[in-house]
Amino acid sequence: MPKYTIGIDFGTESARAVLVDLRDGQQVAEAVYPYPDGVIDERLPGTEIRLEPDWALQNPADYLSAVKETIPRLLRTSGVSPEDVIGIGIDFTACTMLPTKADGTPLCFLPEYRNNPHAWVKLWKHHAAQPEANRINELARARGETWLARYGGKISSEWFFPKALQILNEAPEIYEAADRLIEAADWIVWQLTGVETRNACTAGYKAIWSKQEGFPSPDFFEALHPRMRHIVKEKMKEEILPLGGRAGGLTPGMAAATGLKAGTAVAVANVDAHVSVPAATVTGPGRMVIIMGTSNCHMVVGEKPVIVPGMCGVVEDGILPGYAGFEAGQSCVGDHFAWFVENCTPAAYAQEAEARGLNLHQLLEEKAARQKPGESGLLALDWWNGNRSVLVDVDLTGLLIGATLGTKPEDIYRALIEATAFGTRVIVEAFEEYGVAVNEIVAAGGLPERNKLLMQIYADVVGREFKVAGTSQAAALGAAMHGAVAAGAAAGGYDTIQEAAAHMAHLKDESYKPIAAHKAVYDRLYAEYVTLHDYFGRGANDVMKRLKALKAEMRGA
Amino acid sequence: MPKYTIGIDFGTESARAVLVDLRDGQQVAEAVYPYPDGVIDERLPGTEIRLEPDWALQNPADYLSAVKETIPRLLRTSGVSPEDVIGIGIDFTACTMLPTKADGTPLCFLPEYRNNPHAWVKLWKHHAAQPEANRINELARARGETWLARYGGKISSEWFFPKALQILNEAPEIYEAADRLIEAADWIVWQLTGVETRNACTAGYKAIWSKQEGFPSPDFFEALHPRMRHIVKEKMKEEILPLGGRAGGLTPGMAAATGLKAGTAVAVANVDAHVSVPAATVTGPGRMVIIMGTSNCHMVVGEKPVIVPGMCGVVEDGILPGYAGFEAGQSCVGDHFAWFVENCTPAAYAQEAEARGLNLHQLLEEKAARQKPGESGLLALDWWNGNRSVLVDVDLTGLLIGATLGTKPEDIYRALIEATAFGTRVIVEAFEEYGVAVNEIVAAGGLPERNKLLMQIYADVVGREFKVAGTSQAAALGAAMHGAVAAGAAAGGYDTIQEAAAHMAHLKDESYKPIAAHKAVYDRLYAEYVTLHDYFGRGANDVMKRLKALKAEMRGA
Repeated sequence: MPKYTIGIDFGTESARAVLVDLRDGQQVAEAVYPYPDGVIDERLPGTEIRLEPDWALQNPADYLSAVKETIPRLLRTSGVSPEDVIGIGIDFTACTMLPTKADGTPLCFLPEYRNNPHAWVKLWKHHAAQPEANRINELARARGETWLARYGGKISSEWFFPKALQILNEAPEIYEAADRLIEAADWIVWQLTGVETRNACTAGYKAIWSKQEGFPSPDFFEALHPRMRHIVKEKMKEEILPLGGRAGGLTPGMAAATGLKAGTAVAVANVDAHVSVPAATVTGPGRMVIIMGTSNCHMVVGEKPVIVPGMCGVVEDGILPGYAGFEAGQSCVGDHFAWFVENCTPAAYAQEAEARGLNLHQLLEEKAARQKPGESGLLALDWWNGNRSVLVDVDLTGLLIGATLGTKPEDIYRALIEATAFGTRVIVEAFEEYGVAVNEIVAAGGLPERNKLLMQIYADVVGREFKVAGTSQAAALGAAMHGAVAAGAAAGGYDTIQEAAAHMAHLKDESYKPIAAHKAVYDRLYAEYVTLHDYFGRGANDVMKRLKALKAEMRGA
Repeated sequence: MPKYTIGIDFGTESARAVLVDLRDGQQVAEAVYPYPDGVIDERLPGTEIRLEPDWALQNPADYLSAVKETIPRLLRTSGVSPEDVIGIGIDFTACTMLPTKADGTPLCFLPEYRNNPHAWVKLWKHHAAQPEANRINELARARGETWLARYGGKISSEWFFPKALQILNEAPEIYEAADRLIEAADWIVWQLTGVETRNACTAGYKAIWSKQEGFPSPDFFEALHPRMRHIVKEKMKEEILPLGGRAGGLTPGMAAATGLKAGTAVAVANVDAHVSVPAATVTGPGRMVIIMGTSNCHMVVGEKPVIVPGMCGVVEDGILPGYAGFEAGQSCVGDHFAWFVENCTPAAYAQEAEARGLNLHQLLEEKAARQKPGESGLLALDWWNGNRSVLVDVDLTGLLIGATLGTKPEDIYRALIEATAFGTRVIVEAFEEYGVAVNEIVAAGGLPERNKLLMQIYADVVGREFKVAGTSQAAALGAAMHGAVAAGAAAGGYDTIQEAAAHMAHLKDESYKPIAAHKAVYDRLYAEYVTLHDYFGRGANDVMKRLKALKAEMRGA
């Protein structure tokens, strides 16, 4: 009998579970569960307690419901016997973290804490810990902390310790009551297995952990806040488990709730982007995976954890065991095009799109695709939402140059696509400059399937072949693959993620090769892009920051 | 009995005639005549003869029809007796020129030439003489011609000699057949009076004439083309008449055609923008008039004809007798906002505007007016159609900086208005730097009445009070005022344009004074504007020109 594993991808608005055949990775069943409380950013559920701006919480009860709703549905719709389901893997948004009691009970489940927003899950896009992030960065620079360079010189407000420090600063009683502070990814694995584990991916990319140096020192934490000196020992775990490892077996309670067998192998937790890498067939150096959606996330592995300036992070074993995993990002890609369509596309185009049964993206793509590179005369800097890599500067803003009275909406649309491609090329070239090979690129996520023009422009601009992951659900497949490794070959799974990928991961037939004539033009435009990138991004003219500061000043005034 | 004069403003699409009361400038009647052949830019009327790109012609028969249609209508609707109409003035677009026989017959009226496009009127926006303009500029620089500096270092392709040279280069038989080459402004006065005159305004601003130095030398013209050595003597006139002078009296034929009395005084011709200056109450130094419409035209007079780098032109007696008249311009103002509304305003705004009975400009103005200066975080360079003054560079293009995912259409709309205001401030400061005082500004044209937000922004940015001309038909009123001066005080008119202005020209009650708090913010934004203006406009980074060259290359490819 064929064997199967289950992967559950815990996203921002919903969880998506898949049941896959271990022989070929074929998806046999799928179930999506939208979180009843969704993203909590206005008031605490069932109360009138308002949240401040930049807050984003979740309810951990939604994660448990997702498990209990989706797994029975997978079994029901597929007809697969629980006997043949040999493993479970999960991936999660990150850093998405929560405070719990020693037994794993979230503080927000307890009546005495549930009216305190700090008792709930802080979602990855909770941005209210910026002052804490600033303080951490300042202190780390002042103390010359070596780990700072691993993160492009800057810790994000989205990460673990800024969020923990915000709890301590604003709700010390919650900090005290929290026996554990834990990533939701690890927490859900704890709920499945009864065993508290911590995974290398979130520890490395979000909690400043490295295989060589561990976490920041107690001295650093004490300098940050006296109560934090022993945060790792007291509220976290020093032991960090490699990806693909077995966290434990499914508890009898969870078995009863899901219909699976007790003891079914559960993999160590993982992160949505990173778990997608082997699902996109990449299991070693030289091939970058880019998850292309609202933003771009670039991942590539190398032999050694070198410091590439301006990257989001480098973590040994953080993507694939045995390799240094590098992550970089662009904070505004699909969001960019969505902004343009919503704010800058005229009524005449909306009418044309409607008449022809297209959406506005399709219409703009069609019109933009008729142009040659360089024909619009436009060039943009893709910083509408700041620059994540390599400048690591949220205060940079967007720029468009070259407009004339003949400029059309599709000209701008194409220029924005090109700008994000130039941004990716900057990242790729930074990796290569520091010895991390990027010979070929595999695109995953929603955009590559929707926008062929974009893919060709990326190939032409970056000058490398772009392949496309075989599934649009790379994260859920990757989680299921990790479940197969947790189960191991003896149980019908695989012993390594490489073996799992060899069988279960595929590419689409289509691929995008650079067109030489296009590349030649884009090389000229890229040189212009780099000049503007450096002029506005590296201090020659900080006009963007001054405009942003003035804007904040006037909005406050 | 009150006395009256008639002013006729010959525009691009139509002629507008007004009958005004000499006591107070009150408009008693108005008549508009759209030219039957309009702007001829596709094929010659009544033929299949196609024009090349950038051509723009007119039919001089339309100008004659305009006279014969509008004047009788003015008399009819007003009930004013021809006895009481003591003068006529006209203004025209310029340089709008044509070839004629010695008796003034346009070559295009003659069967042997009418199928040759060069026999027709070349309208001001005929842009096909760019190669000829380039050649003139090159030769002038090489020869060190002193007159070049009077025109910002560059002669425009729209002007007289490029157009004349294009005729000679492309249709030498037309050049030979043309006994006269003449501005349409002077030609229509010739038709009215039977006397060929040449006015100081078009001669100075469009035909490189100055009171001190006359026209360029025969040596220069010969170097340009051997056949041109004596162009001035052979086909033009060396005697140039001051504005407001009497060109002659209405011919009996024209009197019969219009219903006016033979011998009615006709003023020397004038140009639409320049004739508006006294109509906007300005009759001496210190007050600038800006005609604000699709583009901005800035005019101010000074005691001496100093060279202000990058201006369109300085002409003694070119605007007001006895003063040096300075002209500068911005090539994209109302056009800018029209472009934005057409190309970048989303369907939701179109719906809102329709539901509320507003046009899109009004809706955007209303939304933009809610913002404080600096609040959008945006800054733009207003070069969507190049820069006319002070950089004099048609190859510069538009720039927008500071965009984020929160940027709204009204933010961009306001930034474009501000950019044109910054552009005006650059011009005003350039004048003042070279000793031409600009203490106060009077706005005329269509925009000041339509957009109060724009007027306040201009006052805040430029830091000077903006008054508004009392009439939206400043050109036609200015022409009528010049008719009054041609008639003279003895006949019931005025002896000088200053006297005419004192009685006939008015300002609106409303004026726009700089708001100190706004000005303080705009001073900061202006400093940023100037930095970007110089960086992109003065050679530090010629990316705009390279993008434009690449665009031309790819469109040709």
